[in-house]
Amino acid sequence: MELWYTEKQTENYGITAKITETIHTEQSEFQKVDLINTEQWGKMLVLDGMVMTTDKDEFVYHEMITHIAMNTHPNPKRVLVVGGGDGGAIREILKYPSVETAVLAEIDGRVIEVSKQYLPEIAGKLDDPRVDVQVVDGIQYIADNKNSFDVIMVDSTEPVGPAVGLFAHGFYVGISEALKEDGMMVAQTESPFFNADLIKRVFKDISSIFPVTRYYTGHIPTYPSGMWSWTIGSKKYDPLEVNEADLIEPEGTKYYHKAMHKTVFTVPKFVQELLK
Amino acid sequence: MELWYTEKQTENYGITAKITETIHTEQSEFQKVDLINTEQWGKMLVLDGMVMTTDKDEFVYHEMITHIAMNTHPNPKRVLVVGGGDGGAIREILKYPSVETAVLAEIDGRVIEVSKQYLPEIAGKLDDPRVDVQVVDGIQYIADNKNSFDVIMVDSTEPVGPAVGLFAHGFYVGISEALKEDGMMVAQTESPFFNADLIKRVFKDISSIFPVTRYYTGHIPTYPSGMWSWTIGSKKYDPLEVNEADLIEPEGTKYYHKAMHKTVFTVPKFVQELLK
Repeated sequence: MELWYTEKQTENYGITAKITETIHTEQSEFQKVDLINTEQWGKMLVLDGMVMTTDKDEFVYHEMITHIAMNTHPNPKRVLVVGGGDGGAIREILKYPSVETAVLAEIDGRVIEVSKQYLPEIAGKLDDPRVDVQVVDGIQYIADNKNSFDVIMVDSTEPVGPAVGLFAHGFYVGISEALKEDGMMVAQTESPFFNADLIKRVFKDISSIFPVTRYYTGHIPTYPSGMWSWTIGSKKYDPLEVNEADLIEPEGTKYYHKAMHKTVFTVPKFVQELLK
Repeated sequence: MELWYTEKQTENYGITAKITETIHTEQSEFQKVDLINTEQWGKMLVLDGMVMTTDKDEFVYHEMITHIAMNTHPNPKRVLVVGGGDGGAIREILKYPSVETAVLAEIDGRVIEVSKQYLPEIAGKLDDPRVDVQVVDGIQYIADNKNSFDVIMVDSTEPVGPAVGLFAHGFYVGISEALKEDGMMVAQTESPFFNADLIKRVFKDISSIFPVTRYYTGHIPTYPSGMWSWTIGSKKYDPLEVNEADLIEPEGTKYYHKAMHKTVFTVPKFVQELLK
C-alpha cells in the first residue's frame, strides 16, 4: 500500500509526497499538529494541513528569515521570534556571538514539544541557556514588552487561523514599539506567485511605520510555488547599505552566505511591480 | 467530477493540478504530447507526462534562457534554439534588433504544431520572417552547421528519452564548433534540489570546453522543486563583465530586467558547492 500526503496549496493546485509513516498526530488547543515521514523530504511538520518545515529544505527558510536582519544589525543582543515553535530560527540566531537573549514567543506549546521530540536537528537549540521560551500569544507579548528588542522576527504560519493577527497593520505598530530605537523586524510574507495582494498590503503597511522597508526572496521547494519572501522593516539599519567586509559568515549555513546579502533584494520584474 | 493531473517529479514527490479539460492528446513519433487546461496555471503543455510550459509561468523560463546570453553578446545576429518547439525562446530572441536569423531546430514537429494551435501567446512568433523552423535532430543540425551562430540555446526536455543526447559532453563540443569564434551557448540544466549530479557534471563538461562558464537560477513554480537553472558556456563574453548601462531592457518582460543580469549568478551555498 502506498500512502501519499497531498497539500492543496490553493483550491486548484498542490504538492504530493509519498510517506513512510505518520509519526505523530494530534489536535492541539490551536491547530492540527501532524508529523509525518516522507521519502523525498524526510520528516515533515504539518500544521492544519500545511507544510511548516521538513528535514531536507528547512535550512532555506530558517537561514533566510534570520541572517539578513541579524547580519545587518551591528550588535543584536536581544532578539524575539514570534511563532517559530520548531526552533529553527532560534538555532540560526544563536550563531551570532552578540546575542545575549533569544525569546521564542509561540502560542502553541505543543508545536514546541513535538518539534523537540521529533525534529532535534531543528529544535535542538531551544534548551540553550540564552533562549527564553514563552508559550504566549505573540501579540500580547509584544504589547507587554516595549522598547525591548534589537531584532524581532515574525515566523508565522499562513495568514489563516491563529496567525491572521500576525499580518495586521496594528501588529507591525506593536512590533515597532517593542523594538529599541535602532531596532529592525523581519516577517515571512508568503509567495509572490500566490499571495500578491497580501505582499502588496504588508509592504505598504510596514513602509508606513518604518523608514527602511526591504523585500527579498528565496527558494523553498515545499512551500507554495517554491518562491518565498520576507519583508524587513527597520528604524535605522539598511541591509543594502552594509559593508560586505563587516558581515559575519554564520557557521554551517547551506543557503545564506555573505555575497548574497544584497543580491537577494533584486527581485523579478513582476515582484517589483507589487512593491510600487 | 473533479479531474486532477499529477506529475511525479521524482519517484516520491510531485505536483497536482485541477484540470478543466484535456484539449489535445496524441502519441507523436517521439513522445506523448498532451495539452490540458488547468485552473491554476491556464493551459499546460505536457510531454511524456512532464510539464513543459504553462500560460501563467512560462515567462520565467523563456525570459531566463534567453536574456542573459542575448544581452551579454554585443551583437547576436544568428541564433539557434535546439528543442524549444513551443516557440517561447524564439519570441524572446526576436526582441533584440540585431537578430537577423533565429533558427528553431526541434526534433518533434508535432510539438510545434500543437503549440501554434493552442498556445499562440507563446508560439505566435514562429511565423516571423526572421525565424527558420527546422524539424530536425538538433545533434545532426549542429554537426552540419559549423562556425555559424552567435548564440545557441539548448531548450531541451528532461534528460530522459529524446533529450538524453542534449546533456552529453560530445554535444557541447559540437555546439562549440557550431558557434562563431566569439559565440556563446546557454543550456537549461534542471533543479539544484533534484538534479545535483547532472548539474555538477554538465558544469564540469562545459568548463572543459569554454573559457567562460557561468551558472544561474530562477523560480519556476511548475518545474521540479520550483528552483530552476541554466548554464552558460562562452568563448569570449562574460555576463559578469557587462556594463549594465550598455544592456538592453527587452520589451514586455515580467521576470528579467537589467538589474538582475549579474545578481542571478549569486547562488545559494549548497549550489556553489556543486560547481566546485
